[in-house]
Amino acid sequence: MSHDNSIKPWGGRFSEATDAFVERFTASVTFDQRLYHHDINGSIAHATMLAEVGVLTDPERDQIISGLEAIRAEIVAGKFQWSVQLEDVHMNIEAALTQRIGITGKKLHTGRSRNDQVATDIRLYLRDEIDAVAQELTRLQRGLVGLAKRHADTIMPGFTHLQTAQPVTFGHHLLAWNEMLQRDYGRLIDCRKRVNQSPLGAAALAGTTYPINRARTAELLGFDAPTANSLDSVSDRDFAIEFGAFSALLMTHLSRASEELVLWTSAQFNFINLPDRFCTGSSIMPQKKNPDVPELVRGKTGRVNGHLVSLLTLMKSQPLAYNKDNQEDKEPLFDTIDTVKDCLRAFADMVPAIEPRQAEMLEAAKRGFSTATDLADYLVRKGVAFRDAHEIVGKSVAYGIAHDKDLSEMSLTELQQFSASIEADVFTVLTLEGSVAARDHVGGTAPAQVRAACARALKLLDQRPA
Amino acid sequence: MSHDNSIKPWGGRFSEATDAFVERFTASVTFDQRLYHHDINGSIAHATMLAEVGVLTDPERDQIISGLEAIRAEIVAGKFQWSVQLEDVHMNIEAALTQRIGITGKKLHTGRSRNDQVATDIRLYLRDEIDAVAQELTRLQRGLVGLAKRHADTIMPGFTHLQTAQPVTFGHHLLAWNEMLQRDYGRLIDCRKRVNQSPLGAAALAGTTYPINRARTAELLGFDAPTANSLDSVSDRDFAIEFGAFSALLMTHLSRASEELVLWTSAQFNFINLPDRFCTGSSIMPQKKNPDVPELVRGKTGRVNGHLVSLLTLMKSQPLAYNKDNQEDKEPLFDTIDTVKDCLRAFADMVPAIEPRQAEMLEAAKRGFSTATDLADYLVRKGVAFRDAHEIVGKSVAYGIAHDKDLSEMSLTELQQFSASIEADVFTVLTLEGSVAARDHVGGTAPAQVRAACARALKLLDQRPA
Amino acid sequence: MSHDNSIKPWGGRFSEATDAFVERFTASVTFDQRLYHHDINGSIAHATMLAEVGVLTDPERDQIISGLEAIRAEIVAGKFQWSVQLEDVHMNIEAALTQRIGITGKKLHTGRSRNDQVATDIRLYLRDEIDAVAQELTRLQRGLVGLAKRHADTIMPGFTHLQTAQPVTFGHHLLAWNEMLQRDYGRLIDCRKRVNQSPLGAAALAGTTYPINRARTAELLGFDAPTANSLDSVSDRDFAIEFGAFSALLMTHLSRASEELVLWTSAQFNFINLPDRFCTGSSIMPQKKNPDVPELVRGKTGRVNGHLVSLLTLMKSQPLAYNKDNQEDKEPLFDTIDTVKDCLRAFADMVPAIEPRQAEMLEAAKRGFSTATDLADYLVRKGVAFRDAHEIVGKSVAYGIAHDKDLSEMSLTELQQFSASIEADVFTVLTLEGSVAARDHVGGTAPAQVRAACARALKLLDQRPA
Amino acid sequence: MSHDNSIKPWGGRFSEATDAFVERFTASVTFDQRLYHHDINGSIAHATMLAEVGVLTDPERDQIISGLEAIRAEIVAGKFQWSVQLEDVHMNIEAALTQRIGITGKKLHTGRSRNDQVATDIRLYLRDEIDAVAQELTRLQRGLVGLAKRHADTIMPGFTHLQTAQPVTFGHHLLAWNEMLQRDYGRLIDCRKRVNQSPLGAAALAGTTYPINRARTAELLGFDAPTANSLDSVSDRDFAIEFGAFSALLMTHLSRASEELVLWTSAQFNFINLPDRFCTGSSIMPQKKNPDVPELVRGKTGRVNGHLVSLLTLMKSQPLAYNKDNQEDKEPLFDTIDTVKDCLRAFADMVPAIEPRQAEMLEAAKRGFSTATDLADYLVRKGVAFRDAHEIVGKSVAYGIAHDKDLSEMSLTELQQFSASIEADVFTVLTLEGSVAARDHVGGTAPAQVRAACARALKLLDQRPA
Repeated sequence: MSHDNSIKPWGGRFSEATDAFVERFTASVTFDQRLYHHDINGSIAHATMLAEVGVLTDPERDQIISGLEAIRAEIVAGKFQWSVQLEDVHMNIEAALTQRIGITGKKLHTGRSRNDQVATDIRLYLRDEIDAVAQELTRLQRGLVGLAKRHADTIMPGFTHLQTAQPVTFGHHLLAWNEMLQRDYGRLIDCRKRVNQSPLGAAALAGTTYPINRARTAELLGFDAPTANSLDSVSDRDFAIEFGAFSALLMTHLSRASEELVLWTSAQFNFINLPDRFCTGSSIMPQKKNPDVPELVRGKTGRVNGHLVSLLTLMKSQPLAYNKDNQEDKEPLFDTIDTVKDCLRAFADMVPAIEPRQAEMLEAAKRGFSTATDLADYLVRKGVAFRDAHEIVGKSVAYGIAHDKDLSEMSLTELQQFSASIEADVFTVLTLEGSVAARDHVGGTAPAQVRAACARALKLLDQRPA
Repeated sequence: MSHDNSIKPWGGRFSEATDAFVERFTASVTFDQRLYHHDINGSIAHATMLAEVGVLTDPERDQIISGLEAIRAEIVAGKFQWSVQLEDVHMNIEAALTQRIGITGKKLHTGRSRNDQVATDIRLYLRDEIDAVAQELTRLQRGLVGLAKRHADTIMPGFTHLQTAQPVTFGHHLLAWNEMLQRDYGRLIDCRKRVNQSPLGAAALAGTTYPINRARTAELLGFDAPTANSLDSVSDRDFAIEFGAFSALLMTHLSRASEELVLWTSAQFNFINLPDRFCTGSSIMPQKKNPDVPELVRGKTGRVNGHLVSLLTLMKSQPLAYNKDNQEDKEPLFDTIDTVKDCLRAFADMVPAIEPRQAEMLEAAKRGFSTATDLADYLVRKGVAFRDAHEIVGKSVAYGIAHDKDLSEMSLTELQQFSASIEADVFTVLTLEGSVAARDHVGGTAPAQVRAACARALKLLDQRPA
Repeated sequence: MSHDNSIKPWGGRFSEATDAFVERFTASVTFDQRLYHHDINGSIAHATMLAEVGVLTDPERDQIISGLEAIRAEIVAGKFQWSVQLEDVHMNIEAALTQRIGITGKKLHTGRSRNDQVATDIRLYLRDEIDAVAQELTRLQRGLVGLAKRHADTIMPGFTHLQTAQPVTFGHHLLAWNEMLQRDYGRLIDCRKRVNQSPLGAAALAGTTYPINRARTAELLGFDAPTANSLDSVSDRDFAIEFGAFSALLMTHLSRASEELVLWTSAQFNFINLPDRFCTGSSIMPQKKNPDVPELVRGKTGRVNGHLVSLLTLMKSQPLAYNKDNQEDKEPLFDTIDTVKDCLRAFADMVPAIEPRQAEMLEAAKRGFSTATDLADYLVRKGVAFRDAHEIVGKSVAYGIAHDKDLSEMSLTELQQFSASIEADVFTVLTLEGSVAARDHVGGTAPAQVRAACARALKLLDQRPA
Repeated sequence: MSHDNSIKPWGGRFSEATDAFVERFTASVTFDQRLYHHDINGSIAHATMLAEVGVLTDPERDQIISGLEAIRAEIVAGKFQWSVQLEDVHMNIEAALTQRIGITGKKLHTGRSRNDQVATDIRLYLRDEIDAVAQELTRLQRGLVGLAKRHADTIMPGFTHLQTAQPVTFGHHLLAWNEMLQRDYGRLIDCRKRVNQSPLGAAALAGTTYPINRARTAELLGFDAPTANSLDSVSDRDFAIEFGAFSALLMTHLSRASEELVLWTSAQFNFINLPDRFCTGSSIMPQKKNPDVPELVRGKTGRVNGHLVSLLTLMKSQPLAYNKDNQEDKEPLFDTIDTVKDCLRAFADMVPAIEPRQAEMLEAAKRGFSTATDLADYLVRKGVAFRDAHEIVGKSVAYGIAHDKDLSEMSLTELQQFSASIEADVFTVLTLEGSVAARDHVGGTAPAQVRAACARALKLLDQRPA
């Protein structure tokens, strides 16, 4: 390889060829080639507009477009030769175009720069990926709500501080996960509207002297509008950061669900079974069946958080407009997209296959004095102030621990030691079914409420664009 | 101090007093007392609703409300005694209420828990702070657009890679900052809608057995709606993270503007003057006038990024529902709010006082072959393909560097060495004014475009709620 | 407050007073006053040296030193008036000194700048705090190893993927925690040696024209040596970042131990009891006893990670030498120190009080086919290749799951279905005690090895400086 | 591909094949295959030891070793077929071994697990990479000190707050960079000692029942010692985090140097020239020569900081011992290593080629009242207290700004307006050479000191292992 700068689009003023290592170090084509599809689309829109405003002739435009489509076909077929010397996806494609159609190929770059070109490409690419993420997210939520609906009555212990708190239903618990994802969807859609703006025409940083029509290229590419300021257009990477922040929060939610799945598959909890196809074994311990999928998703949270930090650090203190630093936006963004899509897919496949062990859940809910709050509420209804009722029940529980008896296992006489207000009707409030059913308001765990919540959740999912 | 647990709201089942250090270590009242105002508002709404549904009598409600108002007055007057033994703002206020109005005070906690109470308080507090942030942001943007308007014609060099690229106007550059802030405003408003949901009534995690009306308390507190799931309501801290992500991106933008202000006040750039009142001096170097405000804002970016990482790390892998870990949400959130408000205030005060040194900016724009692109575009208009024109200009620049001459300083004969297409009319395109005026499309740097962009920006600002 | 700059140490060239908000925004005295002790020590060393080299007279030195000691006493007594107008701890103390001893006070600042002064102060402060952290860490490790020693024979299930893997001893598990802390100690000591270098004498950035003796002030302050380069001395914040990285890793370790403590106190695991004095209760659920201390420590990991990110972000891309940004180094560093000390203290108090429930641990170890690996190893000893043995045992386990029998509960005939190599002696290897005792090599879980490891660990602790 | 689990090392107890997507999602072979060399070395050491203790026969050992070497040759030659179904590098190699040498291949895994095997591999790999990083770091430092030595007398302005502060020499400035790197080297070596411990023999988590000799495998692999606790050995990822923290700080240093290089190559500073081979141009602006290498290095800081956050987040709250999450340790670690090595290489190549523009630097140092401190010091030597001298000079500077005169350009009469203590000898202290030479103490910028510092730095570099 002769390091001859004549191949470069900017060699004119240089008297020395680029250092071979520097060439490899500064090139981006190894990772930005995945933008080829959107790069070609952007170029076609640009050429179309240039012909409309008279900068290209119609035959020139047609030659460019058919040249680009031929290149696209070559790339799809895996026959395209990417060259590190040509730095990036843009120059690789443009050089191939010129080689294919001659001097007309060189006219495509009129009125634009790589600075607005790459910004356009990433936004187009990210927009498509956002749509793909939205679809997997919706699939996961459908599976989740479906499972919740089937288990609107399945009782399990609800925890705070990982201590048994109050009985809830498994369906109610799953809907808590769905709420997190519902907010994630909202953030994703909000992010999309800020992504979907066209920087094309900002050129290097100041706009161009050609009579371009930015609204037209925006329209051709499905953007909502052109961006408002050329300097900002080439230096802005908010879209990557905002998507990164969305992703970090989504992964945080998946990490919480994963943590619970790992806990629930442990011998100690034993609340659910995960089908073998989502688990792997051990090379040394023949009895092991490990919940690899949730563990790995939990671990991948770190990766996505890290990419967000990368992007924020990258942009900190950068003066306008474009700096080479910005080339570092791609790998964290791409890996974030890939990770989020994979994790959503894994969860969307796995969640409907979760098999709750209802007997074990019920048994666990019976332990741990989970209806203590119900007893306190009962006392309040009998006229005791809540704080006093709390203390009475606290003492009953201390007694229960000492004598190894749940509240529902004590006799009326035993219970009456702590308050004369306790009467025979107390035992109905101390059942799990009674406890759960009594939390009968919007957002509460009563099975009727859970079923209504599922219906509302499904309706929201149905309203999403297909 | 006798570490007597009888003061605690949960002492009943405990046989041993809390360790004194543990008490201090786990208490939050030193930092959560700033929530007192919203805590009292939340309690008043709760009491009002409890009376409406018959859990409290009207006289009880009135007693509670007037007690709470008396406590609020005491806190405002700085006379309230906060106690670490009472752990947090909620228990401090409730204990004071009971001391003041007796047993009725103990009834206030009916049908709620500290878990939903604290979630309600923070959301109310954050909503108010979002509104305050929005106001400062708007004030800053108004100042920025005003300055841009006054300098729609002021020419300066535009940079990429901190190398002179093309001339732009100072107004155009400032509008790039405004675009960043405009997106920040959009994110803030999007965040606000997800903050403004009422968790009150979720109780500990499962809802409550009292016949509460969650829609009513939501309405009384100005929330858009009650949250949909009780487990999620007490374990969700998305609002803090989303606000943290908004803030990190806003600070990133301010760091970029700060970096430029620091550069521009350096002797080497000398593009602007910052009034003395925004600068400080040196204890050892008597000549120094340091741009402290932008430097400090730039530095504070780290702090806000760090808080975002804290919050994400905090929530990673937490099983539902509430865990004590969540107490750690407050300090990063509060410090983020304070920092963002201070930095916006500092910028909103400072920006309108920036004094550009127009002569120096113009002089700098003349250097660095900033109209080279204009020459290339000129050649294209004469029929040369862009890529070829680029090379011709590259060689002219190399000649200019060797002979220490800007393009506009070369003779026609000199220029014609590189291309026969160059004619006498070339000199009009090589002026800075011509260069700038020629970028005359939406988002371009032409003064007419900058003025139009200012008008559009002001219109958007005028449409914001006061 | 008249915003009169005459009070400032740098007012000479300024024609306008500092903006009141800017003054508050840029001042650091509210948080850097905690450096007063080390600031005074640094000043005394500086004055001592200045007298030795003839820049101060001996009476001047004595006046300065007694003035500073009087101020220290005032601060300790809480009588010192800190002023935001005087910006920072250094200027507050110097102004007080001048007020107290007159013009001689103004001579103290000869040959130094606030830039080297603050670097000196923080290093002195951090060195002392490192020693305090080392002491708490050692106390925690002693408690840990002590508990491990008492439970060298206590059997519990070892987990991978939170699935029962193989039996281990509780002592062995605790020693795993100790290993993490042992590495942390090594990192802390390595950090200390880089902290303990004296920047004093670097002055603003270039050194000073006075005939100072930097080796002498280094010696007086207990530093190992003066730093080697003046520009680096005032711009370096590595010590804060390195301590931040040490702390983030230490907290990560404590978060892992905390997670396990939280799991172990759950009703599902029920492996340990934490004394009431380390727990708190619930305001609504009377039965709750929450492991607040480990939960809070786990949560505080986020805070410390966040501070590390703050500091790294702060320093990224800063040109030399000192910039105002650096003022932002203090709060994250101080809060990291406070957090780490508190968490270590909480753990050092709590760990020796952990009460393992030996029966529950043993019972749990019996479940989950934890001796499956032992069966495989047994087969290998009978001549079966490990990978084949693994498969034989895998099938035995599948049978066990189907028939709800642990390996040790199967008959010889049942076991022989899977391999003819299984003989009557198999049952000795299937006991928990046999399994544990058989892992009898350095680092293994055999009780003898655990006891030896405790002895080695204690010896290392004994070798630390008191 | 038939998703048949019989190929898995753990298929025995599973009744359902792994889901095809899950298989791809959980496999690590695409990125961990780079460990093949160290994996084979680890296996050879293990086999050697197993033969020594009698678990393998000598012929078995020899068969295994020659099989592994044949596989290594195949991988090096690029002929090895990696299979995702075989999950990771370990299983791919072991399966190939068994295919090649038959049943004996299955015996290699005796007495170890993938958990200790992967920990061993990464530590061996990281140790080698640390040595490679140390070499590049040393090369960079040599170039830096060499350049500093050649420019011990080259005067430039020293900056604080990016405002001209005091003159320094270019050599002195470069040595500040060297100090940062010197500390980095120390941290790297400290990290290496904690990396270089052998986890081999920890097996799955508890050690093994075979009579293994851990000290022997440690010795064979060049480790300093075996690790002390088996649970810790398989769950510890401190080495990755510590290396990540080292790297983040190193990159922070390179980002600071990069920022300065970018500033210095700007038209406004114009302090240095970077040879064309380290720069690239623009596709649209023919005059551009961009400092791509330092920009990109600055940008890559974000990436490395992000990986550190990934790793810390990954390990937060993980219960012992091994969890699948840990598979996520590799990509951030590998990318950190690659990035650090590339950035060091780029800098080591580039730094010696930096061409300072001495005239421009000198001219810049003359501006900005850079000798104001010298005037203040002069006054102190004449008996004025420093704080008063500071004020006198401040007023002289204000006068200079108003009359556009540097201090050295004022007449004696003009200077005497501000203090009668100023006499004719003042002009010698106002020269740049005088100012620089006067800072003549350890760490000061006097050329003699810079030369001595270079000599000391080179001596330290010479003492490093080759």
